[in-house]
Amino acid sequence: MRERKTDLDNRATHGLHTVKEEDVEGDIENDAKGILNSDNGAHSTEPLLVKRRNTTSQIAIVGANISPIESLDYEIAENELFKQDRRSRKKVQIFQYILLKWTFALLIGLFTGLVGFFNNIAVENISGFKLLLTNKLMRKQQYYEAFAAFAGCNMVLAAAAAALCSFIAPAAAGSGIPEVKAYLNGIDGHSVLAPGTLFVKILGSILGVSAGFVVGKEGPMVHTGACIASLLGQGGSRKYHLTWTWLRYFKNDLQRRDLITCGAAAGVAAAFRAPVGGVLFALEEAASWHVTLPSLRVAVLFIAYLFNAHKNLTVVAIVLRAFMEFCGTGKCGIFGKGGLVMYDVSSEKVQYSGPDVLAVILLGIIGGIFGSLYNYLVDKVLRTYSIINEKGAAFKISLVIAIALLTSCCSYGLPWFGRCIPCPTHITVSCPNTDESGNYKSFQCPPGYYNDIASLFLSTNDDAIRNLFSASTKKEFRISTLFLFFSAVYCLGIVTYGIAIPSGLFIPVILAGACYGRLVGRLFRSISNLDTGLFALLGAASFLGGTMRMTVSLCVILLELTNDLLLLPLVMLVLLISKTVADNFNKGVYDQIVKLKGLPYMEAHAEPHMRHLVARDVVSGPLVTFLGIEKVGNILHSLRTTGHNGFPVIDEPPFSDAPELCGLVLRSHLLVLLKGKNFSRERIPAGQEILRRFAVFDFAKAGSGKGVKLEDLDIEEEEMEMYVDLHPISNASPHTVVETMSLAKAAILFRKIGLRHMCVVPLSQGRPPIVGILTRHDFMPEHILGLYPHIKPHK
Amino acid sequence: MRERKTDLDNRATHGLHTVKEEDVEGDIENDAKGILNSDNGAHSTEPLLVKRRNTTSQIAIVGANISPIESLDYEIAENELFKQDRRSRKKVQIFQYILLKWTFALLIGLFTGLVGFFNNIAVENISGFKLLLTNKLMRKQQYYEAFAAFAGCNMVLAAAAAALCSFIAPAAAGSGIPEVKAYLNGIDGHSVLAPGTLFVKILGSILGVSAGFVVGKEGPMVHTGACIASLLGQGGSRKYHLTWTWLRYFKNDLQRRDLITCGAAAGVAAAFRAPVGGVLFALEEAASWHVTLPSLRVAVLFIAYLFNAHKNLTVVAIVLRAFMEFCGTGKCGIFGKGGLVMYDVSSEKVQYSGPDVLAVILLGIIGGIFGSLYNYLVDKVLRTYSIINEKGAAFKISLVIAIALLTSCCSYGLPWFGRCIPCPTHITVSCPNTDESGNYKSFQCPPGYYNDIASLFLSTNDDAIRNLFSASTKKEFRISTLFLFFSAVYCLGIVTYGIAIPSGLFIPVILAGACYGRLVGRLFRSISNLDTGLFALLGAASFLGGTMRMTVSLCVILLELTNDLLLLPLVMLVLLISKTVADNFNKGVYDQIVKLKGLPYMEAHAEPHMRHLVARDVVSGPLVTFLGIEKVGNILHSLRTTGHNGFPVIDEPPFSDAPELCGLVLRSHLLVLLKGKNFSRERIPAGQEILRRFAVFDFAKAGSGKGVKLEDLDIEEEEMEMYVDLHPISNASPHTVVETMSLAKAAILFRKIGLRHMCVVPLSQGRPPIVGILTRHDFMPEHILGLYPHIKPHK
Repeated sequence: MRERKTDLDNRATHGLHTVKEEDVEGDIENDAKGILNSDNGAHSTEPLLVKRRNTTSQIAIVGANISPIESLDYEIAENELFKQDRRSRKKVQIFQYILLKWTFALLIGLFTGLVGFFNNIAVENISGFKLLLTNKLMRKQQYYEAFAAFAGCNMVLAAAAAALCSFIAPAAAGSGIPEVKAYLNGIDGHSVLAPGTLFVKILGSILGVSAGFVVGKEGPMVHTGACIASLLGQGGSRKYHLTWTWLRYFKNDLQRRDLITCGAAAGVAAAFRAPVGGVLFALEEAASWHVTLPSLRVAVLFIAYLFNAHKNLTVVAIVLRAFMEFCGTGKCGIFGKGGLVMYDVSSEKVQYSGPDVLAVILLGIIGGIFGSLYNYLVDKVLRTYSIINEKGAAFKISLVIAIALLTSCCSYGLPWFGRCIPCPTHITVSCPNTDESGNYKSFQCPPGYYNDIASLFLSTNDDAIRNLFSASTKKEFRISTLFLFFSAVYCLGIVTYGIAIPSGLFIPVILAGACYGRLVGRLFRSISNLDTGLFALLGAASFLGGTMRMTVSLCVILLELTNDLLLLPLVMLVLLISKTVADNFNKGVYDQIVKLKGLPYMEAHAEPHMRHLVARDVVSGPLVTFLGIEKVGNILHSLRTTGHNGFPVIDEPPFSDAPELCGLVLRSHLLVLLKGKNFSRERIPAGQEILRRFAVFDFAKAGSGKGVKLEDLDIEEEEMEMYVDLHPISNASPHTVVETMSLAKAAILFRKIGLRHMCVVPLSQGRPPIVGILTRHDFMPEHILGLYPHIKPHK
Repeated sequence: MRERKTDLDNRATHGLHTVKEEDVEGDIENDAKGILNSDNGAHSTEPLLVKRRNTTSQIAIVGANISPIESLDYEIAENELFKQDRRSRKKVQIFQYILLKWTFALLIGLFTGLVGFFNNIAVENISGFKLLLTNKLMRKQQYYEAFAAFAGCNMVLAAAAAALCSFIAPAAAGSGIPEVKAYLNGIDGHSVLAPGTLFVKILGSILGVSAGFVVGKEGPMVHTGACIASLLGQGGSRKYHLTWTWLRYFKNDLQRRDLITCGAAAGVAAAFRAPVGGVLFALEEAASWHVTLPSLRVAVLFIAYLFNAHKNLTVVAIVLRAFMEFCGTGKCGIFGKGGLVMYDVSSEKVQYSGPDVLAVILLGIIGGIFGSLYNYLVDKVLRTYSIINEKGAAFKISLVIAIALLTSCCSYGLPWFGRCIPCPTHITVSCPNTDESGNYKSFQCPPGYYNDIASLFLSTNDDAIRNLFSASTKKEFRISTLFLFFSAVYCLGIVTYGIAIPSGLFIPVILAGACYGRLVGRLFRSISNLDTGLFALLGAASFLGGTMRMTVSLCVILLELTNDLLLLPLVMLVLLISKTVADNFNKGVYDQIVKLKGLPYMEAHAEPHMRHLVARDVVSGPLVTFLGIEKVGNILHSLRTTGHNGFPVIDEPPFSDAPELCGLVLRSHLLVLLKGKNFSRERIPAGQEILRRFAVFDFAKAGSGKGVKLEDLDIEEEEMEMYVDLHPISNASPHTVVETMSLAKAAILFRKIGLRHMCVVPLSQGRPPIVGILTRHDFMPEHILGLYPHIKPHK
């Protein structure tokens, strides 16, 4: 570059070149002063770039560990290679792509359905074995041995789950929904969707739920579905010779995201057997529905895409159904009617009048308050736990075992406070029942009597929910029992989330909510005629609304669970009220967790304080640009000294009339290009040669950890002085905003289009053709409020 | 402007000024040659603007008449007034806004629910009266008189509906869903949502359905819901002193669109009693869910918005329920169990095996073919009818009466081909029944016998569907009857859509589909054990999938209709198959109608041919720009001679260092500013004065036909030479793209952000700061393929 400094028209870009020279000489990581160009007499009176850096963190907590994060890029890099490929595309390739997309969608559905099914069987059998053993010992009146067996089983299972999560895949800890949500927003945490995570998530979830924790398997199922989809979308594995040219179509973030959205939806469908709920969940929580597919032949694809989500859900529904019928004949071990959550709330038609609605409204308001309190407490507990978890694997496992012991003590200890209640007459089920599931647990009671506390505590979470939802059994549980169980489950749910096991949030919330609802139903017996089972359902709805804050999808999931659409108005009413109430206090639990984990989540709307700023105000340095035909040494140096993933490419005379922005080149593409060693000794366009040597799929995004790395390059000293033509791999249509663009508008644009880099161009003429690049981190409130502390964020 | 021609830095913008001078002198409407600036020695070697104009039509068919259309603008004009208003905004205003939004959502739900309910009662009573009269005459064996009464009633009702549609509100004709869909896409047809349209839509729909046409009231209900929402969002009426300061919050397209989305969802909910289906319909068809609200305090609002759709649906559900219970006691005239569509397909649990699924797949494939054929034929018929309708009201009414006569002949004539079938024993309903509804019609048969053809033809459409869906009545209809009814309804449905009455497409399609499904069920009796009623439902699903091509929302609507979620996998499977099959032939029926009507609908994805072009390639002239402080005469002239709605504002020295784009000013805002007469004699900034004189709500978008018009201005000759400062009303953050931006990307951006104007800025320096403006019409395939005929559109 230096030899061209005397060029006549170079004045305007002088500042940028200065930057780069300083980059070469100085230590760019420590100081950004090279960004000021006030010394070089460009037209502009304002500095090219303010002397500031973005200090927001590039690492976040994923699962139970801290790991680096990367942004995903949903923009199509429309470079010359891409255009050449598009021109040469044949019909057969489109057909291949569509066929593959359908196949993948079906496979995702199939695998997720199978995992969901076997997960259920495993949990039912392991916890069934545990409960039967405890029961047997109790009937022999060996109460201490029974406790030892019960707590021992729980702790061994818990320790196994914790060990898996600590040593193999820390990313598998927790619900997984925040991570999937962040991924679909464009944040790729390290190994969030890796095969190891998938393995640990499935196994850890089985162990954790079997260990009697107050955790669900629904959140982990969503994560599992997403992992399965991601694995399919990896584009094969060169190491194991599992690659196939067809798979190349999925080697970009856009295609992978579509698959993962399908996977998440399939997870919900498999967990709740709620296919419509699954679609809606993907829509409401993942919120990536309307992002279209500007790739291949879009018209055809959009239709195919719309299908995908449904197609695999249909498969999930059919797979689950087939296996359920198979298991109904008793071939799957101790597999009761439990497992797949499916409740039958009320067979008769629901009739309600004024006082009932009033009771329901009250239920919703209190449920909303409890829900937001739940979020608040979960947040506090999570902060504490993350300090413990950071200390290492031993601490993580100890924490898990401690909580397992606490849970065991509650489950086994609290029923001793219960009285023995005579079994009701005229019921069809056995009482007390000897099975591991069922409404009436004998515990320490003589035959003909049952312990109502044990009926709730000493069973799987699914069974407890089923017992609470059960209709026409108004007096089965005493008010004190319900109160005790509610307090215990509410607290256990809060202290359990955040330990290093896969742990869903749905079941704890539904459990506490159902108990709360049944309690309210008992208390309101005088003013409302609704069934207590229905009250339990509405209570669960109010808690879900208060914590998760999704209305439509939760509503549909609950209705799909209970298979009674006539409940719709009541469920919707409760969800709306509890959400509205809870929204006054804090954010939804998943949003809170995303924030706590430090994931740079882009909201769909702009923060109010962004309205006061323009794009230029938050641009941070250092900006590193390349010339259209750049020296290899410069590129290599920039790649080494910065962590940037996108570099603006600028054409200068004699290749253009004036300095102009001709595109944006990505780090991963540069690495591939440099590896190809297509250099020339002179500064001449060599685009045709590169177009011949490379195909667009050479630059496709590789699966996680598989791309060309900086260390892989082997550039000799002599080659450092040679030139390489960046035009063929520059995205000629980067999204740009003028520097005076309102930051709020830029943020919405960034989020809606799903960008990774947004170029900021100058408003006035006679200045370098690019002012800076905005990335996800530049829109984060921490960055903006750090730069402008006087702007107060709205609450 | 002319006096500044000698300015030193004026060279670059010279071309633009030349254009404007020629505009002043020449007749801009006839010639666009003023656009070339190759004669003025600017740096650029390429012409500023290619010599071309956009010739796509600015008028479209709305309802049954041709009318001008306008684009809506969902962009917030972030001008100085807006910013000033934002700074001074108080908490109480936000509270007002939220309260109002909730109230409106509830009101929309309430009104739509009421309209839906009374619509049903009216239809049931009018057609009940008609059918009872016919029945009475037939029992007296006065067959000719019976026909005369039947056909007479039908033709009078039809003529009344046609007269309303022809003379009062032509926009009320047809389904209304295409118009609502286009509105939510950003196209405002003349009086699509006017009060007159609402009135005619409700009344015309009642008359049309009562007249025995094969039309539904569901599409019109969606339109009605949208009209009600639009009426509430008008911001009151100054004429009738119904204005209120609070209403000003809704005086922009963004807020109105949200309300109208709610209204459309409420319409679906009221028509089908399917609240979740309503939300999904709004999502899938209107596709405007993810467009957020970048206004006021967005965080709060987004939540409120998410609620709105649900809130009013809850109200709809509750209102309908309350009235149904009221009417169950017989207080609403001849109001049978009919009216509100709600079918009970099968009470027992559905069991299906391999052959059943095979039969269902076959059903889906054939249903998809029939569905796409339906679309094809509707398209052809519509083209023919639009020629007839264009000739005037008399032709329209004659056409309606002719179709009414045809329908009457079919309904009354075809049952004569039927045989009398002995009534089945062991049934609970009376046979033959004398009521206007019910399964078994006596027609000409002796007591104890029924005519199965009459049971389908001589009843309301809702009753016919209910009869077809009825379970456990396998042999009620003969195969020949089903075949006859299917052919008749299929053809009548096709020839009926497009006549000048409000006519929904759902019911004809469901009717034909249910009949087809039942027919298939009868034919497949040997291989499938599924109930024929269930087959009818699946047949309806296959037809709906084949014509409408919405999968999720239709699925949910059907499930909500039948209240059995266990049918979900089968219904989904059928919908997917039929949609996939039909997509190979043509587009969905609503898309077809939108295209046929000439509405410039922006697709969510870009057409493949757009990939080959850049933004610069489709920019069309003439471009008219203003200076930051512009002469009143120039503004007035441009407003008079062009139809443009947005004008770029350019700052020049001495107000800036170099010519730069400082914003975009809207026609409506210019008119208000000129009416305020805040002029100055010198070219000086007068922003502060204007900020004092005006409030942001003076520039809010008025309700349809209420804004300041060009004729309202009264500018004197002397004032023409004065200056006005445009800065306070210029949107300082217009969305821009660089001229080399891929057109496909620009189109997606345009659609996603919901723009009306998109500024194209030059890539290289030393040129005028704006190249052109892209509007919706510039992205239309007709325009692009007109400019580049060698680009072949992909099929």
